[in-house]
Amino acid sequence: MSQAVTLLSGGLDSVTLAYHLREDWGLDLIALSFDYGQRHKKELMVAGNMAYELGAEHHTITLGTNDGSHPYPKPLATILAGSALTDESVPVPDGHYAEESMKQTIVPNRNAIMLSIAYGVAVARGAKLVAFAAHSGDHAIYPDCRPDFVAALNGALNLGNAWADPVPEIQGPFLNISKADIAREAVRLKVPIAETWSCYKGGDIHCGVCGTCTERREAFELAGVTDPTPYADLTKHYAEVQS
Amino acid sequence: MSQAVTLLSGGLDSVTLAYHLREDWGLDLIALSFDYGQRHKKELMVAGNMAYELGAEHHTITLGTNDGSHPYPKPLATILAGSALTDESVPVPDGHYAEESMKQTIVPNRNAIMLSIAYGVAVARGAKLVAFAAHSGDHAIYPDCRPDFVAALNGALNLGNAWADPVPEIQGPFLNISKADIAREAVRLKVPIAETWSCYKGGDIHCGVCGTCTERREAFELAGVTDPTPYADLTKHYAEVQS
Repeated sequence: MSQAVTLLSGGLDSVTLAYHLREDWGLDLIALSFDYGQRHKKELMVAGNMAYELGAEHHTITLGTNDGSHPYPKPLATILAGSALTDESVPVPDGHYAEESMKQTIVPNRNAIMLSIAYGVAVARGAKLVAFAAHSGDHAIYPDCRPDFVAALNGALNLGNAWADPVPEIQGPFLNISKADIAREAVRLKVPIAETWSCYKGGDIHCGVCGTCTERREAFELAGVTDPTPYADLTKHYAEVQS
Repeated sequence: MSQAVTLLSGGLDSVTLAYHLREDWGLDLIALSFDYGQRHKKELMVAGNMAYELGAEHHTITLGTNDGSHPYPKPLATILAGSALTDESVPVPDGHYAEESMKQTIVPNRNAIMLSIAYGVAVARGAKLVAFAAHSGDHAIYPDCRPDFVAALNGALNLGNAWADPVPEIQGPFLNISKADIAREAVRLKVPIAETWSCYKGGDIHCGVCGTCTERREAFELAGVTDPTPYADLTKHYAEVQS
């Protein structure tokens, strides 16, 4: 069976992509999650659980940095500072994902870093495909989620690994569909939706009001499919929807 | 002063590049070394020493992977298997660097991985330049040391970080010169040549016969400048030179 290396954060998008690759394309999965010092480790635990349910080989890639001031490395995110995703001194912004405040949730060059490592694993393992779950709703704020970036990075890594057999290809199967489409796909593919994890805040259940929670809930509403996810704060969300 | 993020392995090439950036271009350096499970850690120690002599800020980036079978991550190289550089079950090949056997020393996609992380640091720190020391002698065997790869990766990362200010540029200032030219530069720039470390074998002094030692010695011979490096095995080398 053909293999794909796929990025698996444990969120709705990457988990749905993994089910899509397995069910629709018949691929054997090598799923990679990344521990770079994100604010909470919950998504890594969820990613491991999802990989187990998928029957996928799973590796958590750890990225650290050491400036000599400590005996052990600190998370890589500590030198990619200023991000609400990783830096506890920056509050997690609430509200819609596409707003200016969400730029704080950017880790510089994150997709290139993760895709480059995934590409190396694909070369080593003879996998033809490297996949990730960026979608059209990500384009506005994250330039490294756009089709032109993916095509350019794919071209560069093809050149840099010209001797590989096969030369892997990076694909973003959801690049031209919306998160609402992904929610519909998740239902069709019988993804364990409530077990996936999107929230930036890392509580026991989804907060319901941070950027990714807002985007997730909106996607199910737009798709017209039932969202089985339990949310902590329904009130604030519905107040916003009404206004 | 303008900043550059530069890859620093502790070898002759990357150390000479760092001196070049500091002395000739007047740049303030953020030097990055990478611990991905290479066969010996000696180069990391040397890189730290060289950064100290350069007065450069220095970070060792650690890359690990965890498949759940151990409580702690193993080096990333363990899933980029089959390389003489990282896998102690594969013998280090002796002889000339450009030979077929040297393909064993390839870690898949290594330059893209290191440059992507360096690029993220450059964006986070507002550095304009990301530099690495690939030279023309690397082109034949390593496609990710060729000018077309560097241009393509730079283009991709420019696109993916379009909002960065400034948008950093990847440069390989030695891409079109030979290692003999670098040896001459090292002498001109008063690089502490004997303190740099090239050998793949990680002994107390350079072995003198592995691929990188062979290439290093040849470079000084071709450049017609004195090589102050102590080598363990001079006999075998000179026997080969005579034949």
